[in-house]
Amino acid sequence: MKREAAGDRDASGGGESQRAWKGSLKTRRRVEFRDTDAAGIVHFSAFFFWMESAEHELMRSVGLHVFERHLDGSEYSWPRVSVSCDYRSAVRFGDELDILIGVAAIGRTSVTYECVFEHNGRAVAEGRVVAVRCLMRPGSKLEPVGIPADIVARLTASDAERKQHQPDSAS
Amino acid sequence: MKREAAGDRDASGGGESQRAWKGSLKTRRRVEFRDTDAAGIVHFSAFFFWMESAEHELMRSVGLHVFERHLDGSEYSWPRVSVSCDYRSAVRFGDELDILIGVAAIGRTSVTYECVFEHNGRAVAEGRVVAVRCLMRPGSKLEPVGIPADIVARLTASDAERKQHQPDSAS
Amino acid sequence: MKREAAGDRDASGGGESQRAWKGSLKTRRRVEFRDTDAAGIVHFSAFFFWMESAEHELMRSVGLHVFERHLDGSEYSWPRVSVSCDYRSAVRFGDELDILIGVAAIGRTSVTYECVFEHNGRAVAEGRVVAVRCLMRPGSKLEPVGIPADIVARLTASDAERKQHQPDSAS
Amino acid sequence: MKREAAGDRDASGGGESQRAWKGSLKTRRRVEFRDTDAAGIVHFSAFFFWMESAEHELMRSVGLHVFERHLDGSEYSWPRVSVSCDYRSAVRFGDELDILIGVAAIGRTSVTYECVFEHNGRAVAEGRVVAVRCLMRPGSKLEPVGIPADIVARLTASDAERKQHQPDSAS
Repeated sequence: MKREAAGDRDASGGGESQRAWKGSLKTRRRVEFRDTDAAGIVHFSAFFFWMESAEHELMRSVGLHVFERHLDGSEYSWPRVSVSCDYRSAVRFGDELDILIGVAAIGRTSVTYECVFEHNGRAVAEGRVVAVRCLMRPGSKLEPVGIPADIVARLTASDAERKQHQPDSAS
Repeated sequence: MKREAAGDRDASGGGESQRAWKGSLKTRRRVEFRDTDAAGIVHFSAFFFWMESAEHELMRSVGLHVFERHLDGSEYSWPRVSVSCDYRSAVRFGDELDILIGVAAIGRTSVTYECVFEHNGRAVAEGRVVAVRCLMRPGSKLEPVGIPADIVARLTASDAERKQHQPDSAS
Repeated sequence: MKREAAGDRDASGGGESQRAWKGSLKTRRRVEFRDTDAAGIVHFSAFFFWMESAEHELMRSVGLHVFERHLDGSEYSWPRVSVSCDYRSAVRFGDELDILIGVAAIGRTSVTYECVFEHNGRAVAEGRVVAVRCLMRPGSKLEPVGIPADIVARLTASDAERKQHQPDSAS
Repeated sequence: MKREAAGDRDASGGGESQRAWKGSLKTRRRVEFRDTDAAGIVHFSAFFFWMESAEHELMRSVGLHVFERHLDGSEYSWPRVSVSCDYRSAVRFGDELDILIGVAAIGRTSVTYECVFEHNGRAVAEGRVVAVRCLMRPGSKLEPVGIPADIVARLTASDAERKQHQPDSAS
């Protein structure tokens, strides 16, 4: 991702750091055939799957589990309450995508992620996800709960701090 | 989508007109297993597939094709430039969803659809899609084009007017 | 699926009984855009989703639940141990598919379903699924269990008998 | 796929050659959330997506395109005529899968791939795909065509030979 391009796009002059994102992560993936449609391009839904996987990769990189099973049997996870995506240009089967995901905001129970997709430096899409920490009980309503301080610290860790967290290979 | 509008809708059992939607359509579908995830609920991405199918059903109901192949070989369709969804409550495998989709706005090249999902009268999700009429050429950039007056008329047809359009079974 | 059987079916316009299928069900669905790929046709994976949904519809039609939660908290379902599909011709976005699913065999713990897909009378695909009744325990191995006689009776009910089973709307 | 063969492979740490596979490729991927279902495990359909991506990776590794557009405008690809998968044990969100794909047979117009999935050395699934080289024409029937000798040579290249093929990054 060219910082210049990102700055131009925001018109406010904001690249990765200027976005005031807290923790962030870069990743890359190739467009698979399952993600295309009969218009010959990537189906718009695929970006939501990719955002979710990038979010999970970001969590793993700071030693967090997407699902936490506590000793008392309770289970916590992060369902979405709001998602959106704006599309700039099409990508096709086999294209490699550069994905940049960052934590744009953290509230008492929610985390807002922003995600930028590029192909060979060309803007492709920008997405946004608001996930809420919830107590998950089979058959019951999802119950939002406060995000523990340790998790806030990990999600907003700088690159340097992040290296201190023991990444965990579990899901 | 204003909460007030949603409130009105729930209170009155109507709301469709109060939204000042132009053309609209009600449909219903059952949650399939493919749309669930390991959290035991419907994956957030499924609502985008359902919105797309509801949009296509709305188009078919007024005799429009999702893909138009013209005699000169040119092809037109409606890629998305922006989509979003807000989630109110979870639904599960086997639940039946009531889906209400309407045309919220039409610009020179774009149509904005809004979509409301309910389960047994309970608010589940609200989505929004901006689709742009484009000339599709294999291997080329998608080129936005103006929406012909006949298509505008069909998309914004009232229920009474809609019955006059010869629905077309083709895709 | 033996070619002979398929031949019989095509020649006679019947075949359902000649297959010696036990319970069976006809259903119909339209190809959605999500099920297409960049080759312009339906992605081969879609038939597995459709078979699964047809299987669930067959179960519901005889009052069976896909997931059974018993009073003691145990849960039973039907994971697949083997699936296959043979493709005869392509289908495209918007096409309507006629789907015929039947119970080809029932063993102590397994049910074998066969599924035939047609479009306007043209053979499209034939699939086969072997599902095994399992006790599902979170975090544990799936444990195959015998199929109760009542469930065998429902799955193999003739059309006449099926009408006596109280269909259940739950999933 | 015979259990003996799988046993040999596990015991010897080899097996690839004992299967008499021609070209083969090992790859690895992590189970993404989109691939799970409400039973808490990977949905059976996911293995078909993974097989397809492994097949494409194998093709790329020997410099082949999944879609070939020739100078005269004709386009060739590899639709499936038959696929199957047998499931040995469940995998879950976050698990890493070892995937081994090989060319089991090549006919005049078809290639048969076999694919073995493992998690930490435990057998998970075995799949089989028969793909046919076809001339793809929009709106027309797919037309099977003979596989050129150069493509046969690349698909059946040994590891040593494969290094001589100029891998191509295009799709």
